[in-house]
Amino acid sequence: MNFPLIINVLISVCAYLMAKRIIPAMGDMFIKANLFGQDLCKKDKKKIPESQGVVAGCIFLVATFIFIPIPFSYQQIVDKKEFPHEEFVELIVALLSICCMILLGFADDVLDLRWRHKLILPTVATLPLLMVYYVNFNSTTVIMPKIIRPLVGMSLDIGVLYYIYMGMLAVFCTNAINILAGINGLEVGQALVIACSIVIFNCIELGRDSTARTYQFSLYLIIPFLAVSLALWKFNRFPSKVFVGDTFCYFAGMTFAVVGILGHFSKTLLLFFIPQIINFLYSFPQVFCQVPCPRHRLPKYNPETDLLETSKTTFHLDKLTFLGKFFVVLFKTLHIIQWTEGKDGTITTNNFTLINFILYLFGPVHEKVLTQMLLGVQILCTCVAFIIRYPLAGYFYDT
Amino acid sequence: MNFPLIINVLISVCAYLMAKRIIPAMGDMFIKANLFGQDLCKKDKKKIPESQGVVAGCIFLVATFIFIPIPFSYQQIVDKKEFPHEEFVELIVALLSICCMILLGFADDVLDLRWRHKLILPTVATLPLLMVYYVNFNSTTVIMPKIIRPLVGMSLDIGVLYYIYMGMLAVFCTNAINILAGINGLEVGQALVIACSIVIFNCIELGRDSTARTYQFSLYLIIPFLAVSLALWKFNRFPSKVFVGDTFCYFAGMTFAVVGILGHFSKTLLLFFIPQIINFLYSFPQVFCQVPCPRHRLPKYNPETDLLETSKTTFHLDKLTFLGKFFVVLFKTLHIIQWTEGKDGTITTNNFTLINFILYLFGPVHEKVLTQMLLGVQILCTCVAFIIRYPLAGYFYDT
Repeated sequence: MNFPLIINVLISVCAYLMAKRIIPAMGDMFIKANLFGQDLCKKDKKKIPESQGVVAGCIFLVATFIFIPIPFSYQQIVDKKEFPHEEFVELIVALLSICCMILLGFADDVLDLRWRHKLILPTVATLPLLMVYYVNFNSTTVIMPKIIRPLVGMSLDIGVLYYIYMGMLAVFCTNAINILAGINGLEVGQALVIACSIVIFNCIELGRDSTARTYQFSLYLIIPFLAVSLALWKFNRFPSKVFVGDTFCYFAGMTFAVVGILGHFSKTLLLFFIPQIINFLYSFPQVFCQVPCPRHRLPKYNPETDLLETSKTTFHLDKLTFLGKFFVVLFKTLHIIQWTEGKDGTITTNNFTLINFILYLFGPVHEKVLTQMLLGVQILCTCVAFIIRYPLAGYFYDT
Repeated sequence: MNFPLIINVLISVCAYLMAKRIIPAMGDMFIKANLFGQDLCKKDKKKIPESQGVVAGCIFLVATFIFIPIPFSYQQIVDKKEFPHEEFVELIVALLSICCMILLGFADDVLDLRWRHKLILPTVATLPLLMVYYVNFNSTTVIMPKIIRPLVGMSLDIGVLYYIYMGMLAVFCTNAINILAGINGLEVGQALVIACSIVIFNCIELGRDSTARTYQFSLYLIIPFLAVSLALWKFNRFPSKVFVGDTFCYFAGMTFAVVGILGHFSKTLLLFFIPQIINFLYSFPQVFCQVPCPRHRLPKYNPETDLLETSKTTFHLDKLTFLGKFFVVLFKTLHIIQWTEGKDGTITTNNFTLINFILYLFGPVHEKVLTQMLLGVQILCTCVAFIIRYPLAGYFYDT
């Protein structure tokens, strides 16, 4: 068994216990600082502390800072190897990117930043990461699936495009979790499922080759992340006693992007994001303003039944852009949106989010059940991801 | 001339221009987020955006992120050396520590953290820094002054104490600027003077040995810092249009500590902090609660004369602790406090800050003049520091 990994687990347990104690204790401080929200899906509108992701993020940073010396001094004492500067810088730069995103997320929660900042800043925060990738690996060659090899060859060096892909991965991961959100426990819940999937994947790979340092590296970061998220989940799940804010979504997204990039499994990582990708594609017409998008797209709470219903958007088909019309008709043809035509020619559909889609399929349900359903979808998709990654990959790649 | 340094200056100029544009534009966003203060030394009490240091800090991070690749790719292309992982990790870890402190400072401004957090968190934020120091240098030997060499030898290896010293340096630098504050432009002004002193010192040392990479490293960080601080100064100087918040003090303090530690001139750095050290020693009885300390110790504004006067604290000599009594009597004997005895035995003195001490010496003055006086003291002390560092050091050390 791997000694630094054991220490990592122990430190993570301490981080979990610490987070479990600190998060509720900080609640009043956040409310006093005007950082609170009201639960739109509840009868009583009491103040709930917002953006507690920053507490989890800080505890994560402290835990990893304390952990950093362990694997390196262990290597020097036991293996008598020279100090592995390349590995060390990877860990440091990973923390730098994550720390930047926590800062940005918290600033966003406090200041309500504009959309362009949310796209520019994650890109900038990945610059040092890409630099380390360039120095340590600089492998921009993509192995091609067997089917298209006769056309393009065994592999293709896509050069700078690979760096653009990685930069966009970080932007995608940070925002993807952020837009699949709005009901109690969903943000943290999905992050927990993804983190567990990564842990399982890394363990499988380490089982095949116990010296694969990229997977060890990934575990060093994901295990403390899992610990603090678990503590946050205790308070964020239904009924929420704290909200996690953009801070948590950014923190989680960047952690995933970092381990995916420096752990060399960015494609596998994307497989764990299937529900987020589906949600993103489904949301596309509203997020990019082709179809009217209300300020909040979260489900509508019905205080009489205590159940959640789909929230709606209303528009005139003629007033949509060409793209908007195309998507709406496409979605209607595929029967993936609720569709009601008014007498005056207005059309009412559900808002285009995975949450509303689930409600459209399974009717009004209780908030707790809805979260469970969505997390069920996430787990199901993880199983699909593993099937694609292991048995199916053999058909497309040499394994 | 050093090519990466020229690029660094160019990037810093861009950072300055960007900061100059963004800082005033963000003002309303901060006020809306409840991050504002009222100027206690002005007649009109309008809302002034607070903790704008976070904007300067973020622009600093973006500028350095963009700069990072330059020196390293330059070395590889021109000098054809192997990639210098040690130097690279130094730059990354420096940014990690600074980024952590910006996050902590901003959290402090928003949430009003407790005193213990302010001591624990900078210590934790320096852990990775100390780890890099351990790996890259691990020199814990202190050269002794000539006078005491017969007693302890040429040099002394103080081992782990050296790491404790460096950890405390970071805590000191971050808090020292924070307690010498309260009037328009003072925080940024003193940081500018210290940063200029460091630039001059590094240039002198680079003039002696142009390959001294530790001084280059220091300049790579200090020049962008100088740029964003200069932009902040434009808005923070009398009459302040923005306040900089704890964020800036932490950001500045950590930047200084980082360059001092990794640039190997922590003792010289402390010479540039003479006014802060004096202020700390003078404040000691109040900061550590040996003498009653009001919530604000900044000077008292007299709206009739538009001048600032010393602010006061009142106590019974008998009710002080032993230490408190000792300091008060010591200060009185040295004539460095105002001393008024009331009929009922109460004693009134000025609050123990350098700002009040200057007011005690030179009487009520205008806020603008007071800042100029204090910055004058800072510049004077820098001159003294250079005299100690250069002509005088020869008497104590072999140079």
